[in-house]
Amino acid sequence: MACFYPEFSQKFAALLPELRAHGRVAIVGHMRPDGDCIGAQVGLARVLSAAGVREVTCLNADHVPRRLSFLTAQTRVLHAPEFLGNPDSDFRAGDYAAIFVDCADAARCGVELQTAFPKPFAMVDHHLSNPGFATHDFLDANSAATSEILAGIFLDLGLPIDEQTAQALYTGIVTDTGQFRFPSTTPRCFAIAGELIARGAQPAEIGYELYERESLGRLRLLEAFLKTLRLECSGRFCFGFLPKGIFEATGSTVEDTEGLVDYARSIEGVEIAALVEERVEAEWRGGGVKMKASLRAKNPIYRVDKIAAKFGGGGHACAAGLTAEADREAFCAELLAAVAEQLARVEASGGATNSEETIL
Amino acid sequence: MACFYPEFSQKFAALLPELRAHGRVAIVGHMRPDGDCIGAQVGLARVLSAAGVREVTCLNADHVPRRLSFLTAQTRVLHAPEFLGNPDSDFRAGDYAAIFVDCADAARCGVELQTAFPKPFAMVDHHLSNPGFATHDFLDANSAATSEILAGIFLDLGLPIDEQTAQALYTGIVTDTGQFRFPSTTPRCFAIAGELIARGAQPAEIGYELYERESLGRLRLLEAFLKTLRLECSGRFCFGFLPKGIFEATGSTVEDTEGLVDYARSIEGVEIAALVEERVEAEWRGGGVKMKASLRAKNPIYRVDKIAAKFGGGGHACAAGLTAEADREAFCAELLAAVAEQLARVEASGGATNSEETIL
Repeated sequence: MACFYPEFSQKFAALLPELRAHGRVAIVGHMRPDGDCIGAQVGLARVLSAAGVREVTCLNADHVPRRLSFLTAQTRVLHAPEFLGNPDSDFRAGDYAAIFVDCADAARCGVELQTAFPKPFAMVDHHLSNPGFATHDFLDANSAATSEILAGIFLDLGLPIDEQTAQALYTGIVTDTGQFRFPSTTPRCFAIAGELIARGAQPAEIGYELYERESLGRLRLLEAFLKTLRLECSGRFCFGFLPKGIFEATGSTVEDTEGLVDYARSIEGVEIAALVEERVEAEWRGGGVKMKASLRAKNPIYRVDKIAAKFGGGGHACAAGLTAEADREAFCAELLAAVAEQLARVEASGGATNSEETIL
Repeated sequence: MACFYPEFSQKFAALLPELRAHGRVAIVGHMRPDGDCIGAQVGLARVLSAAGVREVTCLNADHVPRRLSFLTAQTRVLHAPEFLGNPDSDFRAGDYAAIFVDCADAARCGVELQTAFPKPFAMVDHHLSNPGFATHDFLDANSAATSEILAGIFLDLGLPIDEQTAQALYTGIVTDTGQFRFPSTTPRCFAIAGELIARGAQPAEIGYELYERESLGRLRLLEAFLKTLRLECSGRFCFGFLPKGIFEATGSTVEDTEGLVDYARSIEGVEIAALVEERVEAEWRGGGVKMKASLRAKNPIYRVDKIAAKFGGGGHACAAGLTAEADREAFCAELLAAVAEQLARVEASGGATNSEETIL
């Protein structure tokens, strides 16, 4: 018997009969879902179904990205406009027990879903900044991925993990560890990955779906992004910019921005990196132009979640995000100042800032 | 007791006393060494030393790339000009039993080392096109990396694998599997990686050294390469070009070309990708301008090693290389024709060409 998350597993086992009795579970992911979000949603949905929960539905404010669509073929995943304010939809939020996955706070699922589920039944997450917001919280900031926590619980309890489930959970781990190389990667990640492979996860197939189906447009977007890279703070901060209209100009989409910021972060000497994007919001979200920033740090001592928090955003010590209604010039200046301040603070403290909260 | 390579392990165990009695072993890598080459050299060198071989030296025609230098701190690695034709060197090739690692044929180590060791004692390799060339061949084209074969043998035999050795062999596996995602990635890769982590390999540290120490010059080179990408053969062939002088213009080095071709390969619909480079050869190699091409395929049925062979090159089914003395225009036209012919041949055979030789 595996024993990856003894406390969580005991708690999860105790809740299963409740979920079975309830009969309907909604698994809620965050806006702009990534591999760990979709992997965790699909993995949890399949295991709950296999464990006897009558109806399980995944809900997302945004569409499942093209590169992750291979995971959702056999799972019911609804996109916000399909069930909110749609008179033809048979979906009634009140009938469902909601489990939020990979959401650093309740608002990360988007205002529509947050309103539909004001008091989630449970949440499973690994974000350092998560304050806890459900009746039953499964929160572990020492885990590399929400999918890792779920896979660990399922393995501990001997719940049925079939090939599709293993693919989904493996994908979550692979994407949130940067293919097993971010500092959050632990021996547990490998042990769990090995167990998932033994149950049918196909690393090569997943690698193909995730990384070998690029569009030329995405590479043109990358080219445009690289051209804008600027080093600041004596080479310790690197940021790049995507102006509005860039997706049309390069033949790419919003999804294609994923991972771009890692190029800025990968430079030797850079401690903090940012991708700043001038985003035209979708009509059904009210339209308008917003500034969106993705922040990354090489080392958790830099706590980019604290920088994001200054702008109302959040995330992990090494990866955070924010959205602001501001003018481009003013926003970039403000962000630069906030990063410079954080770099100076960490330096002044000898790199020990908030070490008690730091994940390594 | 592990049992990853039963036949090889038995053979290796039988040769160890011979190597101990001989006392001096030279471990020869290939030109422009990559992570698997250096990882295998360092791993083998350290294990042989720990197993009682008096003197072990690694030899390379080219320098250890900057990003791999973290592996060689405690290992003697000599670069060709340090021991060939250097009257001050105490190195006498004739005193050494040579083991070639990760070389698809004897010539891959460079003409100087090939001449110095006309009959290698042993070779360890995983290249499909390898014809066998040593007294004792350890050749397995079903392995993802030479480091995987060596790690498997060491684990089978219970030979001493310390932290540095584990780091080196893990690095070889990680780089040659594209971080556990090329089709060559098998459950054995994960099992061996897990064993190496248990013995001290640090995925995050290795990830940092390999992928988080980029130069801005390397990103400028990537930008320049992306700009040249062209789709041919109805989108099934993608190639990009690096003209001479590009390293100076972007502030990059030859080493920085590593991995660029994978961007061309990653495009959906592309089956074969190429990076063509106009290379000015080093003075001590005679100077002159040569055309160098790196070929990649998504699927081994396309056998890019066969395309490379037409130009006197070689490699794997999915990754091969070649060097030609030719004019740029003429060479690109010839390469395009060879690729088109190979795509047509595979199509005509329903994708079954040479399937008996195919690695999956």
